[in-house]
Amino acid sequence: MSILIVGTTALDSIKTPQSENPRLLGGSASHAAVAASFFAPVSLLGVVGDDFPEEYITLYKKHKIDLAGLERAPGNTFHWEGEYEVNMNNRQTLETDLGVIENWAPTLSDNLCRQPFVLLANCAPQLQHHVLRQTKEARFVIADTMDLWLNIARHELESLLKEIDCLVLNDSEARQLMEEDNVVLAAQQIHRYGPKYVIVKKGEHGSVLSGPNGLFLAPAFPLNKVIDPTGAGDSFVGGLVGYLASHPGEVETNLHQAIIHGSVTASFCCEGFGLAATTEISMADIQQRMEALKSMVAF
Amino acid sequence: MSILIVGTTALDSIKTPQSENPRLLGGSASHAAVAASFFAPVSLLGVVGDDFPEEYITLYKKHKIDLAGLERAPGNTFHWEGEYEVNMNNRQTLETDLGVIENWAPTLSDNLCRQPFVLLANCAPQLQHHVLRQTKEARFVIADTMDLWLNIARHELESLLKEIDCLVLNDSEARQLMEEDNVVLAAQQIHRYGPKYVIVKKGEHGSVLSGPNGLFLAPAFPLNKVIDPTGAGDSFVGGLVGYLASHPGEVETNLHQAIIHGSVTASFCCEGFGLAATTEISMADIQQRMEALKSMVAF
Repeated sequence: MSILIVGTTALDSIKTPQSENPRLLGGSASHAAVAASFFAPVSLLGVVGDDFPEEYITLYKKHKIDLAGLERAPGNTFHWEGEYEVNMNNRQTLETDLGVIENWAPTLSDNLCRQPFVLLANCAPQLQHHVLRQTKEARFVIADTMDLWLNIARHELESLLKEIDCLVLNDSEARQLMEEDNVVLAAQQIHRYGPKYVIVKKGEHGSVLSGPNGLFLAPAFPLNKVIDPTGAGDSFVGGLVGYLASHPGEVETNLHQAIIHGSVTASFCCEGFGLAATTEISMADIQQRMEALKSMVAF
Repeated sequence: MSILIVGTTALDSIKTPQSENPRLLGGSASHAAVAASFFAPVSLLGVVGDDFPEEYITLYKKHKIDLAGLERAPGNTFHWEGEYEVNMNNRQTLETDLGVIENWAPTLSDNLCRQPFVLLANCAPQLQHHVLRQTKEARFVIADTMDLWLNIARHELESLLKEIDCLVLNDSEARQLMEEDNVVLAAQQIHRYGPKYVIVKKGEHGSVLSGPNGLFLAPAFPLNKVIDPTGAGDSFVGGLVGYLASHPGEVETNLHQAIIHGSVTASFCCEGFGLAATTEISMADIQQRMEALKSMVAF
């Protein structure tokens, strides 16, 4: 089955102690869409400005991503500039220019309204909700979020949570949302806001799912070298929803496998700047790491 | 088979924002010995002072720990005083009095020399090496260590590493030892110093084994509430060596299961001050959490 992915389609300028990487293709929807594209047909809903390079359109097309919902508007593409410290664990936002996404409120075509899997990748909860309200045949709705929205759009986020099946957020965000330091407990408490499933991302430490059948603890694929973790969380949720959309049966039954496939897909994202590594892999590479990961957790 | 465990037998005074807990039974050897005692016969090698309460001797005996190697010397028992912050993740050492262990250099009885499994629980590398040199029939030797010894006894620790089968240390210590920020890479590099197996403890995030067959990623048992993590790392390695000693066959074959049993045993340690929770459990409780953990990682 196919997937609608809405989120940011951005230009990311990423500095590390070793290098500068200006205006790479980035954004939550870009990372998620490329990750999901290995598994299932993806329709991208996003907006870019006049300055969006044609080569990035070509990259989307290489992954057979449906771009009917990618709008080009007058103005600048959303641009994020960030700098990582030596260990790649801490990063600092140097500049954010929302550009054309700031006041964007898309009207969905009939085809986009009817996608069975809906990923509201990280963007303003108001925008996520605006898109969700237009969907007509959604079987499973996942939303990702970030600390910014907890700080400036908490009310809008809480409204959204009532309408989705699964929330994905990272450990510090889960703690912040529930004002609870214990991540396992925080994950379990988030159900109160509405989502049947809650997935807490812990970066190199994997992730935790809380759902009707209790907890599922998922490892991250161990990497000897991290080049750039930007977009890894988006790749994770993209791979996850891609797996779900491409496998028949209940979400409940497939979700553990989906999370592990998300983990593995995200691991490639960390091995290059922006989408450089992810766009070079194939399903065979994902399967190979799946097998390796299975053997690394067997007991 | 049986286990020789050497390390500190201490009195721990543990403050938290909620409570003060003076002079609890603690120390690396105490935690490891009680944890291992659920699985296999344990001989404890340690030293206590005049002030060591009789009730703690009773506690060791309740766990059928052989105390022939527990020496009572004139002076104070090793005493550690620490304070945890609200989230129980950060702790500060307020005072350390080495007491009778400072100049202790035990001579092992013939029986103790012939134990097949040897756990050099966290204590000075000089003391660990002194004990190891007296062993005569060791089949498998594990050593645990801590940042203090990396700082003040690096040379002695490196000498010890040449002689042991397995090193256990936590993630920040692995980073420090190899001057490598990537924990997975640091674990793999530690083999250069000698140990065939390296286990990096990551607290609530589980642990990573690096060995001849590659990596093994072990989850921690998720807890909704942590009362006191003091001794959890010692309980982990105690449960681990206990499992190995109680199961026939090659260590290589049993090590993954041993690590998971160590994880589960350590989870109980975190649920009470000092040994309060661990000493109340039975093998059935460990088995129950093993089953629960298995279902939480299945995919």
